[in-house]
Amino acid sequence: MTQSPADLIITGCTALVHDEHEEIGFVEDASIVVRGGVIEAITDDVRDLDAVERIDARGQVAMPGLINCHTHAAMVALRGIAEDLPAEEWFNDFIWPIESNLKEKDVELGARLACAEMIRGGVTCFADHYFSMDTVAAVTAESGLRAHLGEAFFSSQGAEGLEKSLEFALRNRGGANGRITTALAPHAPYTVDDADLSATAELAREHGLPVHLHASESRDQTDNSLARHGRTPIEILERTGLLDTEILIAHGTGIIDRDLPVLEGATGQVAVATAPRGYLKFAWGPTPVRALRGIGVPVGLATDGAASNNSLDVWESMALTSLVQKSAEGDPRWLTSRQALHHATLQSARAVGLGERIGSLAPGRRADIILVDLTGPHTQPVHDLAATLVHSARAGDVRTTIVDGRVLMRDRRLLTIDLPSTVGELGERLPSLVDRSHGGRIQEYDT
Amino acid sequence: MTQSPADLIITGCTALVHDEHEEIGFVEDASIVVRGGVIEAITDDVRDLDAVERIDARGQVAMPGLINCHTHAAMVALRGIAEDLPAEEWFNDFIWPIESNLKEKDVELGARLACAEMIRGGVTCFADHYFSMDTVAAVTAESGLRAHLGEAFFSSQGAEGLEKSLEFALRNRGGANGRITTALAPHAPYTVDDADLSATAELAREHGLPVHLHASESRDQTDNSLARHGRTPIEILERTGLLDTEILIAHGTGIIDRDLPVLEGATGQVAVATAPRGYLKFAWGPTPVRALRGIGVPVGLATDGAASNNSLDVWESMALTSLVQKSAEGDPRWLTSRQALHHATLQSARAVGLGERIGSLAPGRRADIILVDLTGPHTQPVHDLAATLVHSARAGDVRTTIVDGRVLMRDRRLLTIDLPSTVGELGERLPSLVDRSHGGRIQEYDT
Repeated sequence: MTQSPADLIITGCTALVHDEHEEIGFVEDASIVVRGGVIEAITDDVRDLDAVERIDARGQVAMPGLINCHTHAAMVALRGIAEDLPAEEWFNDFIWPIESNLKEKDVELGARLACAEMIRGGVTCFADHYFSMDTVAAVTAESGLRAHLGEAFFSSQGAEGLEKSLEFALRNRGGANGRITTALAPHAPYTVDDADLSATAELAREHGLPVHLHASESRDQTDNSLARHGRTPIEILERTGLLDTEILIAHGTGIIDRDLPVLEGATGQVAVATAPRGYLKFAWGPTPVRALRGIGVPVGLATDGAASNNSLDVWESMALTSLVQKSAEGDPRWLTSRQALHHATLQSARAVGLGERIGSLAPGRRADIILVDLTGPHTQPVHDLAATLVHSARAGDVRTTIVDGRVLMRDRRLLTIDLPSTVGELGERLPSLVDRSHGGRIQEYDT
Repeated sequence: MTQSPADLIITGCTALVHDEHEEIGFVEDASIVVRGGVIEAITDDVRDLDAVERIDARGQVAMPGLINCHTHAAMVALRGIAEDLPAEEWFNDFIWPIESNLKEKDVELGARLACAEMIRGGVTCFADHYFSMDTVAAVTAESGLRAHLGEAFFSSQGAEGLEKSLEFALRNRGGANGRITTALAPHAPYTVDDADLSATAELAREHGLPVHLHASESRDQTDNSLARHGRTPIEILERTGLLDTEILIAHGTGIIDRDLPVLEGATGQVAVATAPRGYLKFAWGPTPVRALRGIGVPVGLATDGAASNNSLDVWESMALTSLVQKSAEGDPRWLTSRQALHHATLQSARAVGLGERIGSLAPGRRADIILVDLTGPHTQPVHDLAATLVHSARAGDVRTTIVDGRVLMRDRRLLTIDLPSTVGELGERLPSLVDRSHGGRIQEYDT
């Protein structure tokens, strides 16, 4: 009996795996067999097995592709446009005025550049929350990445905002051969009123859609919400029924103690995305990761948009989550490298609703795999591989990025995106994109 | 009249320069002419000029090489050996027991690996504080790097400790064609007694040597010092005469308000080196950079050793200094990208006593230059070049590293160090190096 060749075999790597208790371990000299976009086996013997494509990964670690659990991909176009400012000025004086110039073509080029950056940094899936999302879906399809996409809306758009968000989600879910999942995407409790949040929750339940939104982004927002409404942003989510849905909350640095029983009692599936770089930059506090873990809420890693975060480097988010959490808790033993890797893998997969499909290297999981080169001087010697990955390796050490078994970057060469033409075309559009002389803005930041 | 060819001409770069007020600016399409290890000119026209070597640096930024103002280079051998621990356990249970096994050969191989990492990360000068420093001087000479070296000592060594530190400093200063400067290197006020600190100060003045030591590393140390001696570590430095010397203080996260007038009143040249990654990891507070700047103390960037910091990535120290300081001060407007670049350039050069020789690209300065590639997707587009350098670029974007006009890395290829043989040889020695079964340690951590 002959077996048809596998689509891809990766040989000689050290594979990051999870045991039955989700503890992280490493299998040395492993081979990974991929067929039909799925991991078929992780084995030590593939000598008799044919494959259409083979990758020799000696000296490299294979790990689940990183997941960027909250971003605004196209905002790479605004990377560095508004620096060293408090969030209010950043929104009102720069980002929201500039976004009133935004054309579909800007989103297309920005998203394409973002996909290039993410593929180069070992990201295989991103949760995007922005405008002109049909365009982002098309770029996702062409790039080969996996994505969880939501068309953002404000109540200031009237009924049309939520309608468009729903239409987008229904039209695109399952797109790009199943790599695209979709969400309803209200902007935040301070820009979407309670009636629209309630309607969002109803539609989410009716259509089986998740919800992705910003909430409790900073302590100031929580304090303002309490002063204006007598409720925290999390309590508003609860009251409007959103905690009964599958909900991905971006940031949550303003989550306070009284929010914890509310989140714990939620009947939906609640997750939080943390993007620590931007919080330091805005001088916000950190996401209360330890408290959230204490009540079983998965905390996924994210970068937010590059206009605030300056990069889409999820590797850095992983390291910073560990560092900032130790510092914030005053406890060097907390958030070890293995915990950080758990956030980067299974918790991030759960945060984007794909906990059964991605986030670990195991038979039956989608073949979203990155190969990380540890031969550089900055990653030698290796006494503790988890620490090497979290605290010494960098996004630039990712040599190969694979999604659904398809190689999107090989030896640091992008295979699905023409970077120079993307950068060139975007550059020509920037002067009109960043023009703020019209004096308008798409929304007011007033929490 | 004919002119002899220049040694090196770098063409087509964007050059980071300082104006007369030390404000950072950028000169586009610049050429840098190097002769005799020195920058001869930064000009826009080199058409008629011959050169032995030319580097086409279009799309790249030329900036002063980074300076690692406090490290223990050879400790890369222990990268990842003791993770997620408080400082006391880290020292007493791992580092100081392991260091009692340390042989000169371990230091040689560790230092060589460290030099490889630093050259790859755009570091052109490092301030090293460790043991077997003659070996580190030899590796520095062979690597082509610039270094500020001090033989560390404890009072537990008896009189020999300080003697050896002095002999090392006198024997090696001016070594490696002037690339090596030296310092006296007492470990810290909690491991070196007041008599030895006073003797160090006297010898420093007598021989015109700087002093490099750890002090006020954490708030705990300051509190313990106050409880035991009624004085802060900074007050001990003042009382023992060390603040009358050229002194480089590592860390200083425990510097408190009452220390500021003491530092401000110092008759010597005081500088502080900050290594923010390790402070987060040990859950220490940050160096009070804003307060130190307020009294005119230069704050240089550093990584500490890789056993605590996990990397010798000064680029990351630059970004983290900006991020952590914004967060610690609660002020997103503070420590802008241009301020971070000022720390990375002139302030770091002053911290290692080379403020007139390196730290800026200007005629007459030593030609310590790095070329940074900004064509990657994570550094595009560029709206604010200072922000791109600090918050988007990474150590891995350094393509070329030059010290005294000599190219040490070209297009990411190391030209002076054989990395695989260094990693291989070091690997063979690791089992006996990390053996702690003897139960000894070189020193006790008890501040």
